[in-house]
Amino acid sequence: MKAEDRFVERLRAVLPGGTSGRVRIGPGDDAAVIERPAGPVVATTDMCVEGVDFLPEEDPYGVGRRTMAVNLSDLAAMGAKPEWFLLAVAFPRSRGEDFPLAVARGALSRADPLKVDLAGGDLSEAPVAVIEISLFGSLQAAPLTRSGARPGDAIFLSGWPGRAAAGLRLARRLSVFASRGSAPTPRFVGLSPNDQRELLAAYRDPEPRVTLGTWLAEKHLATAAIDVSDGLGLDAGRIARASGVRLVLERENVPVHPSLATFADLEGLDAIDWILSGGDDYELLFTVSSGTSELLTEAAAKTGVDVRRIGRVEAGDGAVLRDRHGDRDVSEMGHDHLESGAAEERR
Amino acid sequence: MKAEDRFVERLRAVLPGGTSGRVRIGPGDDAAVIERPAGPVVATTDMCVEGVDFLPEEDPYGVGRRTMAVNLSDLAAMGAKPEWFLLAVAFPRSRGEDFPLAVARGALSRADPLKVDLAGGDLSEAPVAVIEISLFGSLQAAPLTRSGARPGDAIFLSGWPGRAAAGLRLARRLSVFASRGSAPTPRFVGLSPNDQRELLAAYRDPEPRVTLGTWLAEKHLATAAIDVSDGLGLDAGRIARASGVRLVLERENVPVHPSLATFADLEGLDAIDWILSGGDDYELLFTVSSGTSELLTEAAAKTGVDVRRIGRVEAGDGAVLRDRHGDRDVSEMGHDHLESGAAEERR
Repeated sequence: MKAEDRFVERLRAVLPGGTSGRVRIGPGDDAAVIERPAGPVVATTDMCVEGVDFLPEEDPYGVGRRTMAVNLSDLAAMGAKPEWFLLAVAFPRSRGEDFPLAVARGALSRADPLKVDLAGGDLSEAPVAVIEISLFGSLQAAPLTRSGARPGDAIFLSGWPGRAAAGLRLARRLSVFASRGSAPTPRFVGLSPNDQRELLAAYRDPEPRVTLGTWLAEKHLATAAIDVSDGLGLDAGRIARASGVRLVLERENVPVHPSLATFADLEGLDAIDWILSGGDDYELLFTVSSGTSELLTEAAAKTGVDVRRIGRVEAGDGAVLRDRHGDRDVSEMGHDHLESGAAEERR
Repeated sequence: MKAEDRFVERLRAVLPGGTSGRVRIGPGDDAAVIERPAGPVVATTDMCVEGVDFLPEEDPYGVGRRTMAVNLSDLAAMGAKPEWFLLAVAFPRSRGEDFPLAVARGALSRADPLKVDLAGGDLSEAPVAVIEISLFGSLQAAPLTRSGARPGDAIFLSGWPGRAAAGLRLARRLSVFASRGSAPTPRFVGLSPNDQRELLAAYRDPEPRVTLGTWLAEKHLATAAIDVSDGLGLDAGRIARASGVRLVLERENVPVHPSLATFADLEGLDAIDWILSGGDDYELLFTVSSGTSELLTEAAAKTGVDVRRIGRVEAGDGAVLRDRHGDRDVSEMGHDHLESGAAEERR
């Protein structure tokens, strides 16, 4: 039996019972056959490359779990309900046949609680590991796009961006310490174990905002939405370009998590730069018409959804950070020196 | 604007007019939205890795075109009608931003004539190029699976397998000649320019059997089907295992293309070994109940479909090649020395 056939047999053994009945023909034939209701399919794909999107020393279960989270975040930003996925794994033979199975188990750990089914996939050999997930879902309402923001709308953000980029830097520091033979979890002076866990978790195991995304779509609360995958500045700029408006982020309202503030101080950096250009946060950035803004804040508070108003939409273009000194263009943060630095560090 | 956003703008410019109206939201948002009729989705994914599944010197247009063909072949083996696809490309920065665009144009060159739409995708950096396509379609009839073959069925094959593996070897030889400064298209003594073109084309630009696959499904002609991607022996073994039967390939009826026979002679090899374990052919191997066998041969002859009967299904297990000396197990050809040799050569 070929390695891929052996993998399929082992994979079937770890697949959940298939209570959804959605996957009529699953892994092991030339293609999968998936039953679904009438209506449009929402589809996204994300590829994660070893040494670029994840560190070589990261465990495959965690990488599979994160790749799934990244895809779930894309569907959340459309307000779609996730249903099934395809998984492709390329990896060096030296990693062994357990590698793709661990990746699949990691992806399933995020998929199962949402009743999202693994329908099929592909294995290949490669000099570095590459993990690709395509995820599919359905719409209960009109999709949330990037193009519906209008002047006067309020800008909202979920969670606490910037922590993932800080967590990646922390992981690299810890990795260097470990390679020098230090204790497995050395402490940064001034950064509590709790803060460390907080930042590392934000990078390693981001929480996709699935409930928030579908809630916004079903209640028609958002005029535009995007998931913050490449930094708040760049992704705000994307909504601005798609909608033909200007997004004004009010510095005093952009949330800075205490753990991020502490670590930024220790590193001699400004936390806002991590927030604007760090990436990998997978929070939702969305706009809300002015009439709905207070309603949304109240409803979110009641349901425990962690969102806050961080700015407003104006006529114009681009995305700016506004403070008492004026406006700073942040929509191209991906091209300034800090983003280049961050990009280098991600390599 | 980030490289990925620039790519999306350039990609939109090369996308066909979108006459199908299927893609409601295409490349450029967090996910794609695709309109489709009610009924099951058929889904497949294939990843092609530089240095493993294609040669580093191959042009990206050709690789995109072949990756699309590989996916179309998988849907053909299910009898499904292809409708839309997602494209993910990881590549080294040194290849430049034109690289993923050329890949997309190659994929579209196979997709357009079939009215298959590009709905979305992803870009990433990587140390080697990795191209992944997920392809989706619908069923007009019950899907062709691997598990329906029954004792007494006839075994049919389309086209002339073995040529792709021979073409890959020929491409490597020509590449070596070229690197030594020989003429750009050196001739192998005894292998005509026509034969060379024939073999190289079988490897570089395989023809997916889309029409044949949907025809078999809609007319309920096949009891089981698979596309020959890993060698006739191994893939026959897969039908045998899934169906719980034995596939007997009759050596005298397995077609050996003249160009393949000539090249195998020149290389001192037996052409049948390339056919059984070479792979990358993307022909359809399928079984037909005995009552339908003659009907199928006649119908195929009338419509110009290139299929032939190459054996029969018996009770038992595995796949064997039968000649006057007896039966030879070929269902594990992927593990014997020749497949290892071929696999090495593909690296």
